[in-house]
Amino acid sequence: MALRERLYEALRFRALLASNIEILSWDQEVCMPPRGVAHRATLLGTLANLLHKHITDTLLPLLQEAKEHPELTPAEQQSVGILLEDLEPIVKIPPTLVQELTEEVTLAKAAWVEARKASDFSRFAPHLTKLLHLLRAKAEALGYEREPYEALFRLYEKGITITELEQLFSDLKPFLLEMLHTYQGYELEGPPLALPAAAQKELVSTVLEHLGYDLSRGRIDLSAHPFCAGFSPDDVRLTIRIEEEDFTMALSAGLHEMGHALYEQGLAREPIGWPISMAASLSVHESQSRFWENHIGASLPFWQFMQARILPRYQPSWLSAYTPLTLARRVNKIQPHLIRIQSDEVTYHLHILLRFELERALLRGELSVPDLPLAWNEKVATYLGLTVPNDREGVLQDIHWSMANLGYFPTYSLGSFLAAQFAVAMSRENPYWEEALAEGDASFPLQWLQKNIYAHGALWDSQTLCQKATGEPLSVQYYIQYIRTKLENLYEGLPLATA
Amino acid sequence: MALRERLYEALRFRALLASNIEILSWDQEVCMPPRGVAHRATLLGTLANLLHKHITDTLLPLLQEAKEHPELTPAEQQSVGILLEDLEPIVKIPPTLVQELTEEVTLAKAAWVEARKASDFSRFAPHLTKLLHLLRAKAEALGYEREPYEALFRLYEKGITITELEQLFSDLKPFLLEMLHTYQGYELEGPPLALPAAAQKELVSTVLEHLGYDLSRGRIDLSAHPFCAGFSPDDVRLTIRIEEEDFTMALSAGLHEMGHALYEQGLAREPIGWPISMAASLSVHESQSRFWENHIGASLPFWQFMQARILPRYQPSWLSAYTPLTLARRVNKIQPHLIRIQSDEVTYHLHILLRFELERALLRGELSVPDLPLAWNEKVATYLGLTVPNDREGVLQDIHWSMANLGYFPTYSLGSFLAAQFAVAMSRENPYWEEALAEGDASFPLQWLQKNIYAHGALWDSQTLCQKATGEPLSVQYYIQYIRTKLENLYEGLPLATA
Repeated sequence: MALRERLYEALRFRALLASNIEILSWDQEVCMPPRGVAHRATLLGTLANLLHKHITDTLLPLLQEAKEHPELTPAEQQSVGILLEDLEPIVKIPPTLVQELTEEVTLAKAAWVEARKASDFSRFAPHLTKLLHLLRAKAEALGYEREPYEALFRLYEKGITITELEQLFSDLKPFLLEMLHTYQGYELEGPPLALPAAAQKELVSTVLEHLGYDLSRGRIDLSAHPFCAGFSPDDVRLTIRIEEEDFTMALSAGLHEMGHALYEQGLAREPIGWPISMAASLSVHESQSRFWENHIGASLPFWQFMQARILPRYQPSWLSAYTPLTLARRVNKIQPHLIRIQSDEVTYHLHILLRFELERALLRGELSVPDLPLAWNEKVATYLGLTVPNDREGVLQDIHWSMANLGYFPTYSLGSFLAAQFAVAMSRENPYWEEALAEGDASFPLQWLQKNIYAHGALWDSQTLCQKATGEPLSVQYYIQYIRTKLENLYEGLPLATA
Repeated sequence: MALRERLYEALRFRALLASNIEILSWDQEVCMPPRGVAHRATLLGTLANLLHKHITDTLLPLLQEAKEHPELTPAEQQSVGILLEDLEPIVKIPPTLVQELTEEVTLAKAAWVEARKASDFSRFAPHLTKLLHLLRAKAEALGYEREPYEALFRLYEKGITITELEQLFSDLKPFLLEMLHTYQGYELEGPPLALPAAAQKELVSTVLEHLGYDLSRGRIDLSAHPFCAGFSPDDVRLTIRIEEEDFTMALSAGLHEMGHALYEQGLAREPIGWPISMAASLSVHESQSRFWENHIGASLPFWQFMQARILPRYQPSWLSAYTPLTLARRVNKIQPHLIRIQSDEVTYHLHILLRFELERALLRGELSVPDLPLAWNEKVATYLGLTVPNDREGVLQDIHWSMANLGYFPTYSLGSFLAAQFAVAMSRENPYWEEALAEGDASFPLQWLQKNIYAHGALWDSQTLCQKATGEPLSVQYYIQYIRTKLENLYEGLPLATA
């Protein structure tokens, strides 16, 4: 077989195997009976090994051979370059270190579950110490300039440097504190938005389909932690979590995951395994979920649509109890929360910032693991004004560290900043898209994203994609302007609660 | 790595890959959105190739090396012999023939779907002709004594010869015709057993769990064609089909699939991929589904339990409208039907018999494909006394031929015969198990099957397993006695309908 044909075949095999793993993971979360877990872990482990072996033994040598091979077109060679940039780090890490990390993560995850249950950081501490040791070695193997964090962050986001990231956060921090100070404590109006689970599922499904989620290529299920899983553009599933006392939680989760899902549904089908048919980055992926969750789902026009067209089917009494404005206020309540994933659009980034600072200090060796809970609690008090009552609601709340995913958190914030910048670019092109949204028509944003984001797959990194889609490099100013304007519009004239 | 270790590893990999394929197929039937089908077909095709390559290039050479290797215990060597017997036919068939068959099956299945829709056999005929040509070549490659059918049947059932099969059917045929003549046309009493879908699903789930299906290692879903899929003893799922006008259809399907599921849940977990952790054969698997569907679910004691404990929760008015006897009569109505899968316990085997006869004639070349519909219709008239109105309800009703599964059908009948023989062996050991069943207690049959069937995995073929479990070789007399006694008991004193 010619090199070109072997390369297409090897990329196809990699993509199919990865989607196979995704399907099994989706099934594990959504369908698998509880006692199936041991067999599933064995199966997933075997497939992960098979995939790793395929990449190192077959795919990487082929890509290296193809790099400047005349058999490939310049466009193909560009794609080969992108793939090499993503995959070459994999072979830089010594196999023994990979193995040690995999084993330690298994133990650390189990220890984290137990520690969190008991709300006792000391049970997790030795594992985190071990993981930091291994992650420092990983960062050394990957290489960095200033500090180990750089190397780890780059695994998740290669288009933005850590210096840029620092600048974004330092521009943002005073603004976040100002917003928190101004808006926290506003009392909300209206009765509870309680709805039975079955009705909530139907409501979410109706709204998502209306906005553009193709259910003939997707499905919606329930799971403890909402997520989206794309196996191919023709099979992209999402899950929601339902709290019967308030349907806006399930709806927000649904819109968030739909953002991921629309991206996956909008990617090219062929050539399978090549950058054009892959998502650009975690940050860009998160920009999609944030766009639909916040710029659509937390906007006043969206709640005009909901009030007029959707809610009457479910609870006619809300029509007199609410206006679109009071509904929109409910989903835009600013209130610091101990838990990151329950936080509002403003204080969320303070959660990310404190993790960013703590991870860097840990990796630099400036903060020791036993001192971490205290450092955590101090930052929560400083940034959020909250007292952390226990480790469970503090330093033990996220699974990420137990999975050795240090360097990951900032991609969530970058997603928000990108989403805000995309929304402004959309409005530049069509100033009326939000008016159409009030009628339930989200076709313009979807078309814009299809053309400016989905269509380019992973051909450009986050920064280049942002530049091409919006005409400017990533700037946090769009996020700042978006939040400031929205909160001013929503809360103007509302009396500050005395409580 | 030592040979022994490599062999365990290769068998484990084969079993895991096979269960991976099973999970993807289950998902395809139960969860996958409609447009996901093309990607899924590609993924499944890739995995099937990977599995085939693993068996031919890695596993078979290892097994051949291990055959009389001193590193293995005698018990391991016995298992190696069993595995070789199953897998060696795979390499006897030339790869080009495998490829041709795979390609032709894809076309033939699509043609069968269309032909069936149009009820026009001529659209399927050229594909069947081609398949017969390829299957004859396959039979030649595998080798046989008297006729090509032998070689194909042996792929599904290696413990029973075609001569034994002929004898079983020739013993059975006059009995089936006698039963049909005696019992057909009895009118049933009582109002329809209609129940909403959600209640039916709950009823089936309640009954199955009560009888021994472990839902922490299983789950029940809906699908167009009920099936059972076991990925490991700790994850064995089944599906049912619900007809709202009569819950007994869903219940029968549930009990049938539960028989398969209990077998899979009862197999050994380790060593994975070795015969001890595999099902014995298709016939033995079918004996399990038939046992729970018929010997449990179509028995009078079971309906005593249903009437007393289950039905009052769903439809209290049935308590006065029915007795256990009239309920049991409903699920034991003898009435020839054009469609095999809608047939009763008696006429079902006439359906198998006519397929057995027609397949052999086709493979021998004594019956030509264009003459097949006429031959089919003649046999249906002779055996079932029915006129076939069209090909859809006649020769085109089953998918098996389009999948090249000639030689498969008799395993269904063998399952019934084995089930009846097992039931008698149970009663020999504990004459009171049916009395306990009237109280909803099925623990004795489950224990008996665990000890005599499940525990032995695939260490023995169907015939040996039957001999060890019942003390005798397989005999159709137990099935005959079971049907005769049951129908006499159920219908004695019931007037024959005049209609």
